[in-house]
Amino acid sequence: MGFDAAKAVQATVEWIRDWFDKNGPGCNVIIGISGGKDSSIAAAICVEALGKDRVIGVMMPNGEQSDIDMSKLVIDHLGIEHYTINIKGAFDALIDQMKSAGIEPSKDTIINLPARLRMSTLYAVCQSKNGRVVNTCNLSEDWVGYSTRYGDSAGDFSPLSGFTTAEIRAMGRELGLPSVLVDKVPSDGLSGMSDEDKLGFTYEVLDRYIRTGEIDDPATKERIDSLHKKNLFKLRYMDSFVYDGVEVKAAK
Amino acid sequence: MGFDAAKAVQATVEWIRDWFDKNGPGCNVIIGISGGKDSSIAAAICVEALGKDRVIGVMMPNGEQSDIDMSKLVIDHLGIEHYTINIKGAFDALIDQMKSAGIEPSKDTIINLPARLRMSTLYAVCQSKNGRVVNTCNLSEDWVGYSTRYGDSAGDFSPLSGFTTAEIRAMGRELGLPSVLVDKVPSDGLSGMSDEDKLGFTYEVLDRYIRTGEIDDPATKERIDSLHKKNLFKLRYMDSFVYDGVEVKAAK
Repeated sequence: MGFDAAKAVQATVEWIRDWFDKNGPGCNVIIGISGGKDSSIAAAICVEALGKDRVIGVMMPNGEQSDIDMSKLVIDHLGIEHYTINIKGAFDALIDQMKSAGIEPSKDTIINLPARLRMSTLYAVCQSKNGRVVNTCNLSEDWVGYSTRYGDSAGDFSPLSGFTTAEIRAMGRELGLPSVLVDKVPSDGLSGMSDEDKLGFTYEVLDRYIRTGEIDDPATKERIDSLHKKNLFKLRYMDSFVYDGVEVKAAK
Repeated sequence: MGFDAAKAVQATVEWIRDWFDKNGPGCNVIIGISGGKDSSIAAAICVEALGKDRVIGVMMPNGEQSDIDMSKLVIDHLGIEHYTINIKGAFDALIDQMKSAGIEPSKDTIINLPARLRMSTLYAVCQSKNGRVVNTCNLSEDWVGYSTRYGDSAGDFSPLSGFTTAEIRAMGRELGLPSVLVDKVPSDGLSGMSDEDKLGFTYEVLDRYIRTGEIDDPATKERIDSLHKKNLFKLRYMDSFVYDGVEVKAAK
């Protein structure tokens, strides 16, 4: 596909350094380490950019996390400072409060609340450790809206959102990460299904469509276009009413 | 100041109706009711726009809230469906986890974590009650960054962020809200100080500066300009690295 992973890594490293010079000189990167490829590769590239002493990994299981070994593997491999903050107590407390108030939590609430509690936790660490929170979403996921608004889609800077899944993997290999991390099958760790199972198409098909506009199956094209359109709001600042000409939110 | 509150209310009502037609036909407004003027007035204007049966108020004390009576007053006045979800259990659980992990929560963490837990709670209710979350920030607060990123600065739509504090109050009176709510002195309810004490200038001075560019005291001008510049990031989508020309985040 003509993607030069070494060049992409170098450009991203320079962008991260430049961003911190302007937006947080001396600050640390705060990163949620899930054990998946995106957070592993984002952590590795931040270490490359700022050094391992300026990257702090936070593991945030919701009770038991079956693949927590993967999180520990990336932390050990990079040798970064790290903490474990279990969100189960907070999650259970809010769900109990909802039920006591007479609201039955929906399936969407159960899926998305942990992502928002992890964001809250990352910023709690961030504000106690002179940090900036890295957003680890990639272009393929963002394209179809595979993220929680104000949850994992939050952050202060987003180094990987210009790269497709395949490109990210190539960058992970370039960064010398163990292939068990780089080639891990993306999954939310909740449903037992892979992301691809749930989306109904492969990242390979999606990546090609994003980069070239080419796609073989018209039904898949329609599904991707629909998800893209429906989820664009997650990648924008919220809508606000502008009165009398003064606009502050999302103004350039 | 030549501000026509009736006209402003009508324009905002129409904008809200139009926004829901496009972004959530039949959906409910989910609003955090703090007992302050902004959430009271935002709730009132949403009731005006969509009817009281489509507005759901959520009170979210962190343990005991001394002015919870004010929250109940606005809920009773408007006659809206409402719930109380105490965030103290979740707050304590995360703070305990941080301390157990060896991180001493900073003052900023203690101040901003509740705002993010309230956002998480509002979306938990939102996703269980077919809702859209209203952002209640006003122009004056937004101008100087008086909000928590991904906390009270979050939301799906923002009807009041084009109006100054004085204009909001005029709209509240136009909407027939009790003056004890409309004229309440803004305070975070944490420090015992009013917002104006903490900012070091009055909203009257700030509002005039925003609308006319005029301000008498050069030191105050400098302070407002500095806060404005320093906090603009809260009103933007995060920065992202664009590679190979494909941009999704915050692209128009």
